Amino acid sequence: MTSKTAARYAEAAIEAVPDLPIVRITRDFRATPEQLMRAHTDPDLFAKWVGPNGMTTRIEEWDCRSLGSWRYVAERDGEEYGFRGTFPQVTDTKIVQTFSFDGMPDAIALETLWFEDLGDGTTRLHAQSLCDSIEGRDGMLSSGMDVGVHEGYAKLDAMLTDGAV
Amino acid sequence: MTSKTAARYAEAAIEAVPDLPIVRITRDFRATPEQLMRAHTDPDLFAKWVGPNGMTTRIEEWDCRSLGSWRYVAERDGEEYGFRGTFPQVTDTKIVQTFSFDGMPDAIALETLWFEDLGDGTTRLHAQSLCDSIEGRDGMLSSGMDVGVHEGYAKLDAMLTDGAV
Repeated sequence: MTSKTAARYAEAAIEAVPDLPIVRITRDFRATPEQLMRAHTDPDLFAKWVGPNGMTTRIEEWDCRSLGSWRYVAERDGEEYGFRGTFPQVTDTKIVQTFSFDGMPDAIALETLWFEDLGDGTTRLHAQSLCDSIEGRDGMLSSGMDVGVHEGYAKLDAMLTDGAV
Repeated sequence: MTSKTAARYAEAAIEAVPDLPIVRITRDFRATPEQLMRAHTDPDLFAKWVGPNGMTTRIEEWDCRSLGSWRYVAERDGEEYGFRGTFPQVTDTKIVQTFSFDGMPDAIALETLWFEDLGDGTTRLHAQSLCDSIEGRDGMLSSGMDVGVHEGYAKLDAMLTDGAV
């Protein structure tokens, strides 16, 4: 494996879409689209990798189908952080969900996740978060969410390597 | 009643937010915020006024609470049009919902509705539809939705006058 290839798997690209209140994340995995769908739709698998290191996730509600909903609590050092949303659309290859943090219940983002088969045993995850203002977009980018994204996907990489997904 | 006051009730303002993929609707009603909430959350009331003249609405699913969902079918001259979405957040004064037409299931908008008491027996409805592109916003504006908005709100005016809400 060249270092260039290594870099390809190590980092998610997290960027604002110019002039739109949208954050996009792109990340390649050594996995099939089906494995990535499973990692995002199976609550037991999802709870094992989502979020930064040292945080544990307790799923409180999980109805991952079109018009369903979800709720989970993340916990670290006795502090709990609740998150919730709905699933406006779930297909075999795409998940559309709303997302909010219980501490800021009025800041609701509309997120779309889909998986692009790159044809060489790898799959590219595409995630888009639509906010209702440029300030909301920039607030999301500066919230420290990148740590959770990078560390969470690294945990998912390890689970894929271990055959856990 | 002056003609200026009459005009105030007759029309909803429907406009694009400059540089953002957002459509905003503003409309004043001779009603309390509680009446407008009822007209939007009670499925029997909602079905009576929503949409253009000549269209009838059949509610197929209605769970109007935070993390709930909805589905209805509009019918005219034997043609049916399905719509669906979720309710990411419902409070006493605000409704956040996703919205899509079954004919374009991937075009999902995030809508926020709230009601401003103007203190003179009238209430201003504020509705915001967040799309994921400027083209989506402009497509919504040019879809003919304005007819349904104006005619639907005129039906709601009549129901308020009749004491039906």
